Amino acid sequence: MPIYTITTAAGTLDSATKADLAAEVTRIHSDVNHVPSTYVNVVFNELAPDNVYTDAKPTRPLIINGWVRSGHPDEETSRLVTEIAHAATQVTGIPPERVLVVIGNSPARFAIEGGRVLPEPGQEQAWLLEGA
Amino acid sequence: MPIYTITTAAGTLDSATKADLAAEVTRIHSDVNHVPSTYVNVVFNELAPDNVYTDAKPTRPLIINGWVRSGHPDEETSRLVTEIAHAATQVTGIPPERVLVVIGNSPARFAIEGGRVLPEPGQEQAWLLEGA
Amino acid sequence: MPIYTITTAAGTLDSATKADLAAEVTRIHSDVNHVPSTYVNVVFNELAPDNVYTDAKPTRPLIINGWVRSGHPDEETSRLVTEIAHAATQVTGIPPERVLVVIGNSPARFAIEGGRVLPEPGQEQAWLLEGA
Repeated sequence: MPIYTITTAAGTLDSATKADLAAEVTRIHSDVNHVPSTYVNVVFNELAPDNVYTDAKPTRPLIINGWVRSGHPDEETSRLVTEIAHAATQVTGIPPERVLVVIGNSPARFAIEGGRVLPEPGQEQAWLLEGA
Repeated sequence: MPIYTITTAAGTLDSATKADLAAEVTRIHSDVNHVPSTYVNVVFNELAPDNVYTDAKPTRPLIINGWVRSGHPDEETSRLVTEIAHAATQVTGIPPERVLVVIGNSPARFAIEGGRVLPEPGQEQAWLLEGA
Repeated sequence: MPIYTITTAAGTLDSATKADLAAEVTRIHSDVNHVPSTYVNVVFNELAPDNVYTDAKPTRPLIINGWVRSGHPDEETSRLVTEIAHAATQVTGIPPERVLVVIGNSPARFAIEGGRVLPEPGQEQAWLLEGA
């Protein structure tokens, strides 16, 4: 259900590092938000170096945007961003100063997967069984 | 007012299919959310195949992210995602298992188009007349 | 903390214009939302011309998506989008009819930068000092 978009200047991450980071984000999300890893999507948006600015100067940040269904406890989502940011530095070697993680949220009813509107947080098991 | 971003691995959709999908998303959004089709934007973000992961493995999903103003009835937004997901499969042939639709929302006052802050849901007619 | 993603059809903006627009967005955000400019990120997502549609037809809009922490006064965020849209037209020459600005929001606790969860709006000074 979740989608993570990781934005970098092209050349910041090599292929193996992207695969490793996708694996870590998937593992953490699945663990913290109680979602099977088969539902976790991670995409990399690699932009031309002159298309990425911080403080109006070209830079090379690692920007991770995620989305979760509204209704997860706030503490869980804070833990999610903290673990993902930490893993991003571990996997990529990019220092915390250049790593941003932002999670957006909207109601489960505003999303669909496998042809079915998503369940509220806490209702995943019934939803998964129903679709099996 | 709305913006739909459709993310795929490059090569998933050909040009004609993209145009058809843009037309269907535009038609459905205009119908369900009572917005003239001239306000509906659809962009395709085509990524390198090794930049798209599900369950930490390279995949070829069709990910549709939309945005609407807060305040539409929840049932309407659920209908919106359901119709868009259904149309996506019809137009592209991609099975529902690989189609995700997620609609984000924020207040109308947080958006501007044609130089004017957007109207609350239900106030579109007055806003459109005022700008004519 | 904020991230602005500016989406265009490739060729809409040249390099100097992109740098100027990044500088203006950075200046305005820093001013309106009381955030040091060093925290403002602007990225450009340039898509193939046949990947950008308005009203189901290929077009060349300037779409600016931002993100702020929930809790800023609504009037401030309306001022933010208004000033950014105005500056976009000034810098790029693209008329207001083709400029869209949409700001999403989620709780400060759903975001991390420099290894630390973001402060609530109004708590920036303490947070910045703590990290210094």
